Order: sequence, then structure tokens, then C-alpha cells
Amino acid sequence: MRLEHPRLTERFGAVRIHELQRVIELDSGSDREDVAGQEGLTSQTVPLSALRKIEREMAIVIPCMNETRRVIEGVLSGIPHDCLIILVSNSQRSQVDRYEIERHTVEQFCRSAERPALTIHQRDPGLAAAIKAAGLPELIDDDGLVRNGKGEAMLVGMALAALSGRRYVGYVDADNYVPGSVNEYCRAFAAGFHQADSSYTMVRISWHSKPKLKDGRLFFSRRGRTSEVTNHFLNRLIAEYSGFGTDVVATGNAGEHALSLELGMRMRLAGGFAVEPYEYVDLFEQFGGVLESPHPAVMADCVSVRQIETRNPHFHDDKGEGHVHDMRLQALNVLYHSPVCLPEVRKAIVEFMTAQGALAPGEEPAHERTYPPLSMLALDRLLDGLTTEATSFRQVEGRLAAGVLMDPPIPRAPIVT
Amino acid sequence: MRLEHPRLTERFGAVRIHELQRVIELDSGSDREDVAGQEGLTSQTVPLSALRKIEREMAIVIPCMNETRRVIEGVLSGIPHDCLIILVSNSQRSQVDRYEIERHTVEQFCRSAERPALTIHQRDPGLAAAIKAAGLPELIDDDGLVRNGKGEAMLVGMALAALSGRRYVGYVDADNYVPGSVNEYCRAFAAGFHQADSSYTMVRISWHSKPKLKDGRLFFSRRGRTSEVTNHFLNRLIAEYSGFGTDVVATGNAGEHALSLELGMRMRLAGGFAVEPYEYVDLFEQFGGVLESPHPAVMADCVSVRQIETRNPHFHDDKGEGHVHDMRLQALNVLYHSPVCLPEVRKAIVEFMTAQGALAPGEEPAHERTYPPLSMLALDRLLDGLTTEATSFRQVEGRLAAGVLMDPPIPRAPIVT
Repeated sequence: MRLEHPRLTERFGAVRIHELQRVIELDSGSDREDVAGQEGLTSQTVPLSALRKIEREMAIVIPCMNETRRVIEGVLSGIPHDCLIILVSNSQRSQVDRYEIERHTVEQFCRSAERPALTIHQRDPGLAAAIKAAGLPELIDDDGLVRNGKGEAMLVGMALAALSGRRYVGYVDADNYVPGSVNEYCRAFAAGFHQADSSYTMVRISWHSKPKLKDGRLFFSRRGRTSEVTNHFLNRLIAEYSGFGTDVVATGNAGEHALSLELGMRMRLAGGFAVEPYEYVDLFEQFGGVLESPHPAVMADCVSVRQIETRNPHFHDDKGEGHVHDMRLQALNVLYHSPVCLPEVRKAIVEFMTAQGALAPGEEPAHERTYPPLSMLALDRLLDGLTTEATSFRQVEGRLAAGVLMDPPIPRAPIVT
Repeated sequence: MRLEHPRLTERFGAVRIHELQRVIELDSGSDREDVAGQEGLTSQTVPLSALRKIEREMAIVIPCMNETRRVIEGVLSGIPHDCLIILVSNSQRSQVDRYEIERHTVEQFCRSAERPALTIHQRDPGLAAAIKAAGLPELIDDDGLVRNGKGEAMLVGMALAALSGRRYVGYVDADNYVPGSVNEYCRAFAAGFHQADSSYTMVRISWHSKPKLKDGRLFFSRRGRTSEVTNHFLNRLIAEYSGFGTDVVATGNAGEHALSLELGMRMRLAGGFAVEPYEYVDLFEQFGGVLESPHPAVMADCVSVRQIETRNPHFHDDKGEGHVHDMRLQALNVLYHSPVCLPEVRKAIVEFMTAQGALAPGEEPAHERTYPPLSMLALDRLLDGLTTEATSFRQVEGRLAAGVLMDPPIPRAPIVT
């Protein structure tokens, strides 16, 4: 894969946000010397051997809700073979048990492709029991089940990735019609980790474009409707601190993104659709130097955020305006309530939301739920609970027929650093 | 890349047509033993090292007519780095010189990606002069220029591929919105050549699906409108000889296909949109054992046709019903007039075309133009003419800044075998 060099890097305390890098070639050819350092070059190739090295240590989590079998199969076919597939489903289980169909699709694919996978249902009582026993009762709702929501599915996925012993976790949405774009996302994750200047790294994807039906033809818009708003206010927050306007954040709502577990296990994720923008907010809170960091070792190093613009357009199911509206609100809610959010930005957020009719005059943005970091989890108890109680949990063995999970699990991020 | 094994192979004389193989994984992971021969396995991985080996010897020809810069750039970004890019354009040259924009797009891309390319305009008088001098005056029209048409652009592309000294030539349409699918096509070509049991090989792509706008939503249809008709009659032809009905041909109209030059240089291509279906017809004529073959050496070996179903959907510009109608007619015309076409099939074709209103009762299908094989070309004279007279011809040098073309050129296919 060949990528542009990022031209600019913004700092927010220990957080380094690199400007969007474009993918130039999906496949940069036979392995050869990494020519990054040379004068006058505007781009860098990441040799395939380097991508492979990361892919072997990466789990790809697919949060899934009532997708069709054919679409899921396409997504699976695009995930590089060496990555571990983790499907976290919140699909309906009656009248038709759609999770059962998904699980079967994964198993069938993995049999043909001779590769391992993990699947679980978010609302499996056994999963809830295991998570509670492992020390994260905040994730459990009044019915005694893991809460509904995308952020919650991502947390479950990250916990499974941690149990698998992999070093990186990437997220890929299930509603994607183009297997080749899934392949590009995963490669971009690997390229980002390869280029990273720290073990605490996040890679976020910005799609090349998002085709929409407009007057009976395809129109390729550059930005999602929500992203523009989220990016604007995240950039505004950074600018208020630095005194210089910036456009550096281009991936505030990136569903496709990846984390080193060294970083991910330390982060507090938000519930629902607040999860992606809150990742930025949490980095600013924990590592921005404004508040005291619970992780002095990370502060002494740095947190690297890489943003990559893919070549493929993002063809997916249109969930409609309501969905977009919810996403936008949740993003602004978490930003508004962050202790690092300055009064000027707060004021602008309220003004925007009021003008949009999302807030009544004088009303305050809602609070979104956030969760403690997964480093709090007792992984051995989670593993024990999963394997004994979670009936929806499946480990699909790969060609080597070895267990997918590590037993005993190795914690990636101790609470005290 | 991981592919299903083809389950069935039909023979037509020396032509082996393998049943459609599906792509299972775009990326089959770290290189490992090729496990093709093992019992019980339904699929085969083609290791990346094998794909690379073919890609280094492959030229990818993009026939292009008035595409937008952004779409072309996307297509280029999907072509594996090691393949040589050849753009053959028949775009307008005034008011706006669109070829100039295309050429500039290719040069800019190649500069970033440090790779070579060739571009030429189909209607360049210097190209026509060079081709005439090299011994293929059939390609020249009354204006003294290379004839308009897709088949003609493909011939020019193949001649340039031959001059570059590459062993394989692949064709990829320019109107493709998904770079990842272009990448998959090229990989599938390479996988097909790797698996081929002969040096005389053709690899043809069948897309997974072709999304269409239907009542404001996307509908993923499995087959193009023209392909169904073309495949039906090609299969009918085979069945008339064998006495057994068959569905083996699934790629009669495949725009995305590739040829070993050993085979391609011996083939007679048709003009316009008859080019793709006529490739099958020409194989049946030259190597089907019905007529005497001009190439006994090939007959003693075999011609291998591989058909691969990709994972990616084919998102492209909808050229409308007229375009489709033309393509369908041209396919049936060449089949009808082939000396290997049996009376029963001829009758069925006429009945079909008459029922469609494409023929008046009693009328005969039109003749399509076909060209002599490129092995007739004096490559040295072609090279000389191109470099001295063809003003639209550009050789973009790659990282090694070596000439793109071989001088003197090595003929791939002598006329007498």
C-alpha cells in the first residue's frame, strides 16, 4: 500500500493528530526498501511484509444488527486472512433467529477459508454474567443484559480481542456492499500501525466518498452528513486551546477505525453512537495535559492518531435521516459535557443544537453514558464465564485447529502504568 | 487470494473451458504451501508471491472514452503496482482536449506512485501510420485513422503490451467506481494464469453482482442484461456439438478479461463491442478441431479458459438501453456468421433476433468486422512509427527511469508455430 505522508501534525498534550493521508495505491507491488526517508518524495510505501506482520496480530470486530447473509459474507471475504474475525451481533433472535443465520454464515465462510473466528450475541445472559463477574457491571442494564448500543458492542469486541491475545483491534461496519473497501480499511489500519510513532495508536478511516442516490443517479459526496458537524466542533475545541484554527480532525465519526490494545484498553468508551467521537474526547481528557492523566507512562511517550483517506467509496445501506440526527446529537452531547470543553465551544454547541431544533431554548444537551476502561476487567474471569455460560458464544477453529482464545489470558494494559 | 476449484471442465477441441470459480477471500494471508492437491478441500489459495510473479509480467490496458478524471484516478489506484498501465483513449480532443486531461491524470498518478505507463490516443494519425507500416492496414479507416471501436482500442493496447515485452495483457474498463474491484480483477487475472495448465490462456471475469437503481434503492442483479443472451447462445453452440446441454460459459461479454500474449497474438479480434464474445468464437474456430487449425503446436497442447467470479460488485456508469442493445446484437452477429456455428443455433439466433425486432422477417444478421492476428505485425516497424510519428504517445517512466518499451521488441508469437 502506498500512502501520502501526512503534511501536518497537531498536538493536544500528548496526543498527536496527524493530518489526513490519502491512499495512492491499494497495492504497492513487490516488497522493496521502505523509501520513507528519501528527499522529495511525497508518498511512502508500506511493504506487504510489514502489513502482514500487523495483520497477524489484529482482530477485526464487526458489530452487526440484522444484516443480510450476503452482505456479511462479502464483508468477511474482504478481511485479510491473517486477521481474527470477531462478530458481535445484536440481531433479533425471534421470530427468525437472525443471529443463528449470521453465526452459520461465519462458520461456513471460515470452513471454506480455513480460518478462525469468534461470534457472540450482545444480549446473551451468559455474556452479561461473565462481564459482571469480571468487574464491569456498568455495562449491564436493568434486564441483567449487556446494554444495547454500538459502543457497547465495540466494548464486547475489544474484550474478546484482548482474550485472543492479539495486539490490535479494528472495527468494520457490517453494512458494507464492497468487499474491496473492507480489504482496504484493514490494510490501512495495518499501514497506520506500521507507521505509528508510539505503541498507543489509533487509526481512523475517512472514506474517499459516499455515493448517494440523487434524482435517479449516483452522486459521490465527500463527507457524511454527521461528520461535517462533529469534525467542526472537535476542530473548534482544539483551536480554542492552540489559538489557531485547524481542520486536522477529519474522522470524528469514523465507524472504521482501529486501536492498539495498549491504548484501547486504557480508553473509556461511550455507549451507542457517541462511541466514535468520544474516542477523541477521551484522548483529550486522559492525555491532553489539561486534566491530570491516570497514565504518566503514556504521557511520557505519546498517543498517535493517524487518519487515512481510502480510495474506495463507501457504499452502504442508507439508514435514513433519523439515524443521522441521533448520531449528530450524541456526538455533540459528549463534547459538550467533557471537562476539557471550553465555555466558547460549549456555547457554540448549544447555539447550533438550538438552531437545529434539537434543544429547547435554555435546555442543556443530554448526558451520554460512558464506561470505565477495559483494563479494569479480570480477563480470566471473563474467559471462564464466556466458555461456561455464554450459550451464543462460538469459537470457530482455523486450519491449525488450535483454540482461538488464550488461556490464561495475558492482560494488555495493567491499571497502573 | 483464495478461489474455489472449478468443478467441471468442458472441452471444445483443444479449448478447455473451466466452470466459473468463485473468489472466497480477496487476501489469503501469509504465504504458505499451496494446498491445491489435498483431499477434501474445495478451495485453493494462490500465494502472493505467485500473484506478484505474474503481475510483474502483466500489462493492464484501459480502453477509455470521455471518463472523468476522478474515475480514471480511482481505476489507476487499483491496478497492482507491478503491472504496466496502458491507457488507450478515444476521448474527444476538441473543444476540450479530454485526452490531454487523461494523459495528465496518468502522469500525475505515476509520479506519485513511481511507476511507468503508456498512453496513446486511438485516432492519432501517427499511430495509424505506424500500424499500417507494421502490416495491419485492416485496422485503418477511410480517414486514414485507426477505426473507432472498443475492439480496435483493445488491439492497440495488445500491440503496446507486446512492445513492452510483458507476457500477459489484461483489460479493465475505465468506467468503474470501485478501485477495490479493479484490484480484485487484476489479482484474479494473475491467479488464473498461475493456475493455468497451458501457456495459451484466457482469464475472464464474472462480477459478483451489478447494482442498479430500482425504485430509489439499490438492487444487486446477478447478471448483466446482455450476458444472459450471449452466454445462452455460446452454451447452445457447445451443446450442439457435444450433445449435452451446458451452462459452462458465464463470461461471454466479459469486459474484464486477460490473455497470455502467446494466445492473444494468435487470436483474431473483432471490432466494436463484438470483441469479447468473438474471443470465444475465434477460439472455437482456430482451436476447436472443427476447422483446420493454423497452429498445430497449440492444438497439441491446449487453450485454457478460466472464468472467475469476483467478490466485489461492479459499480459503473449506466450507459443506457441503447448501448446494451448494440452489444447484444453484435455478439449474436459474430456467432451467427461463424463457420463453426451449426444450423440449429443459427436458426435459433435468427428467431430470437426477429422476435426482439432486431431483424425484419427474412433478414440476415449483419456482418461484424474482424481483424487478422497481431502476430502479423512487424513490431520493430510499429515501435519505430510510434516513437517518431505518434504525437499523442507517451511513455511515463517509472522509478527506475528505464524505457518502458523493449527495443528491439521480441515477438511473442511467430506466425508459423
